[in-house]
Amino acid sequence: MTVLERLERELGDIVDTAADVLDDARADRSGHRSSGAPIAVVHARSVDDVQRVMRIASATGTPVVVRGAGTGLAGAANAGPGEIVLSTARMNRVLEVRQDDLLAVVEPGILNAELNAQLAAHDLWWPPDPASREISTVGGNIATGAGGLLCAKYGVVRDAVLGVDIVLADGRLLRLGHRTVKGVTGLDLTSLVIGSEGRLGVIVGATLKLRRLVEGAVCTITAAFPTVRDAAAGSAAVTAAGVQPSIMELMDAASLAAVHALLLLPAPASGAAQLTIQTDGPAARADAERIASVLREAGGSVVLTDDPIEGERLLAVRRSMHPAMAALGTTLIEDVAVPRSAMAAMFDEIAAIEREFGVSIPTVAHAGDGNLHPNFIFEGEIVPPRIWAAADELFRAAIRLGGTLTGEHGVGILKSRWLAEELGDDQWEIQRQILRVFDPQGILNPGKVFADA
Amino acid sequence: MTVLERLERELGDIVDTAADVLDDARADRSGHRSSGAPIAVVHARSVDDVQRVMRIASATGTPVVVRGAGTGLAGAANAGPGEIVLSTARMNRVLEVRQDDLLAVVEPGILNAELNAQLAAHDLWWPPDPASREISTVGGNIATGAGGLLCAKYGVVRDAVLGVDIVLADGRLLRLGHRTVKGVTGLDLTSLVIGSEGRLGVIVGATLKLRRLVEGAVCTITAAFPTVRDAAAGSAAVTAAGVQPSIMELMDAASLAAVHALLLLPAPASGAAQLTIQTDGPAARADAERIASVLREAGGSVVLTDDPIEGERLLAVRRSMHPAMAALGTTLIEDVAVPRSAMAAMFDEIAAIEREFGVSIPTVAHAGDGNLHPNFIFEGEIVPPRIWAAADELFRAAIRLGGTLTGEHGVGILKSRWLAEELGDDQWEIQRQILRVFDPQGILNPGKVFADA
Repeated sequence: MTVLERLERELGDIVDTAADVLDDARADRSGHRSSGAPIAVVHARSVDDVQRVMRIASATGTPVVVRGAGTGLAGAANAGPGEIVLSTARMNRVLEVRQDDLLAVVEPGILNAELNAQLAAHDLWWPPDPASREISTVGGNIATGAGGLLCAKYGVVRDAVLGVDIVLADGRLLRLGHRTVKGVTGLDLTSLVIGSEGRLGVIVGATLKLRRLVEGAVCTITAAFPTVRDAAAGSAAVTAAGVQPSIMELMDAASLAAVHALLLLPAPASGAAQLTIQTDGPAARADAERIASVLREAGGSVVLTDDPIEGERLLAVRRSMHPAMAALGTTLIEDVAVPRSAMAAMFDEIAAIEREFGVSIPTVAHAGDGNLHPNFIFEGEIVPPRIWAAADELFRAAIRLGGTLTGEHGVGILKSRWLAEELGDDQWEIQRQILRVFDPQGILNPGKVFADA
Repeated sequence: MTVLERLERELGDIVDTAADVLDDARADRSGHRSSGAPIAVVHARSVDDVQRVMRIASATGTPVVVRGAGTGLAGAANAGPGEIVLSTARMNRVLEVRQDDLLAVVEPGILNAELNAQLAAHDLWWPPDPASREISTVGGNIATGAGGLLCAKYGVVRDAVLGVDIVLADGRLLRLGHRTVKGVTGLDLTSLVIGSEGRLGVIVGATLKLRRLVEGAVCTITAAFPTVRDAAAGSAAVTAAGVQPSIMELMDAASLAAVHALLLLPAPASGAAQLTIQTDGPAARADAERIASVLREAGGSVVLTDDPIEGERLLAVRRSMHPAMAALGTTLIEDVAVPRSAMAAMFDEIAAIEREFGVSIPTVAHAGDGNLHPNFIFEGEIVPPRIWAAADELFRAAIRLGGTLTGEHGVGILKSRWLAEELGDDQWEIQRQILRVFDPQGILNPGKVFADA
């Protein structure tokens, strides 16, 4: 009996072999596609379904790729020939919301925005806000250790998960973590699973750490600067002033020009870069005024509003970055992070790479936390070697500046070849051995993150 | 050649065999002592010293117990016959402070309070504030995953460490983590090391995530309630009101009476329990007034001050808990945590255990995060079986209520026998296998955390 027959016999009509469904599972939003269709997509409805799939996979030595909404940017959920796709997208219930304990228990398939819509009814929210939040799942956010715009003030996924339930490669269920705010019993396997990109187990549930909705009006500021270096210096001055914005985004000249073109706004001054900043909470207005004065002093041309509609209009420029890039061609969105103090130097490196390789690299940055998203634009479906060469240079520059390959998108297949360079061979080998503890046969997402593990 | 001879030949006069030094290394502040003196205490001055000790230990299969200031409360740093004590207390330099990147690079032996004194000159602080902060090292804080009074608002150690450098059992040095705020390259081994109680490697350095000093005056509130249940309900009402105090401590009647006796204050009303709360930041006064009104509504008798000296006087009652307990006898300080909503139920369980076992269990709690410290008082040096039986009942009650054995003190030798009960056998076994990846011979702190690993 084939693996497919075993799956169908045991799991019935949730085993999907429709050609378009299999084809969809070959790619995420990274621009990468696998070499061919996987065996089947299993639409799990329950932990038990997941356990049954993993038992079959384990018994037959079949690789399994876990998939949520397929919005990843590093190819970690791309599935190919001979692989089973285990989709947790239909496991999308909120099982429990506790206002008194500031926690929620959820299934992995719920969309980030849908969860937050449900939590808002309780005056609560889950802070991680990747740009994909309307379309990405909480399980995917956890598997990639996602970040977002609000991270500098409200933290990343790692700061917002109390526990995860995972199904191991052999089908056993482990409940990791706590329902308590504090807890130090044994090794912190919850943190180990966060950002493990499907290599340690299948995330089938999570206990999330919530916050109360922030009260009061939000203030929004934009500040235009003559050059991207000036804008980077402006954001550093805000950090140095000790004010904590909820959002602080930087757009370089190429990004800003592309978005203005897309939104039919008047073209910005040549070379001009922009900061977009929001403040929230009880001191929102005072913080915003302090920031505005810091930015004016730094040479910025400042607009400040506490009108929510006007604020959304200003932020829309930043939020339109992805469609603006898509309008220019195919995009490889990169994700390096550097210490905040090295951000201006990183922009210099990007300019040098643009010159050296003759490519344009429009870049936006979460300036509050030193996380840059350089966008490599090219024609066609496949990343050309010249773009990879430029990206290679970019990664090495980030590491040289004390930074990292990936701030929030993950390694997937896109960056596995640079991973050992950042971690060092000893740490890389130890990480691979930890995979084997969870998954001795190596059937969970093989080839992802660790190139040949 | 004996292990001691090898150590002395290679490391010279930092190998200490003075009887009193060896004797000190047998115990921490848990009330536990090992069965006899270790081989030697090596006072490492550098990463290289640590590596050389580990190579000798590895070559000879000799167990190593890493020790900072010896202030642990779970016996994790207690050393016995046949073991080398590797002290990192003299590696106590601050290597780098970056105001722009809000980070510091430190050696493990620096005391928490000493670090914060140095950081204050830069307008910075490292938030974790275990009650032991004047006497405990940063390395020990990381090894135990320490918490403290300010955690509900400012987080625990886990939230405040960007990276750790560890020396493995075989002497290799690994640099884990990032200098960046965000970073998701591979598995999060930094989090795995935090709270690993000396089982994975020797912490020889850390990159700490700092905050700017909070501006403005602190407000302090005390609220007396007729019973501990009322006080617990009062703290829940504060949380439910959506105000975030920086500190919210609860003292039950026995604690409060003992401290009043120690400080020669008038005796509190019989059965009365007390909340001690602080607010900080720009909204400190407004938050304090809102909290005061919530507490009055909940039946509390409230005192509020924004005078720093008066505030310190009020907080001194809470801070005198440990000496007040010591005045009553020998203390086994416990450390369970429960979801905040279960705190009143946990106090009921403690009262039931007091009745059942005929013991008095004065209890304080970090009420903002559901972390309780029940104090078992007894005569003599050794915890009597009756006290262990009562503690056993306490742990089971906490786990039944959705809680954990230890919120911030760690497992050490004190709680290893209950660990599998909380983790489940499958997770316990996986954790043991992860230890073997880092330390195949099992020479790092054997017997701690995992009873027979």
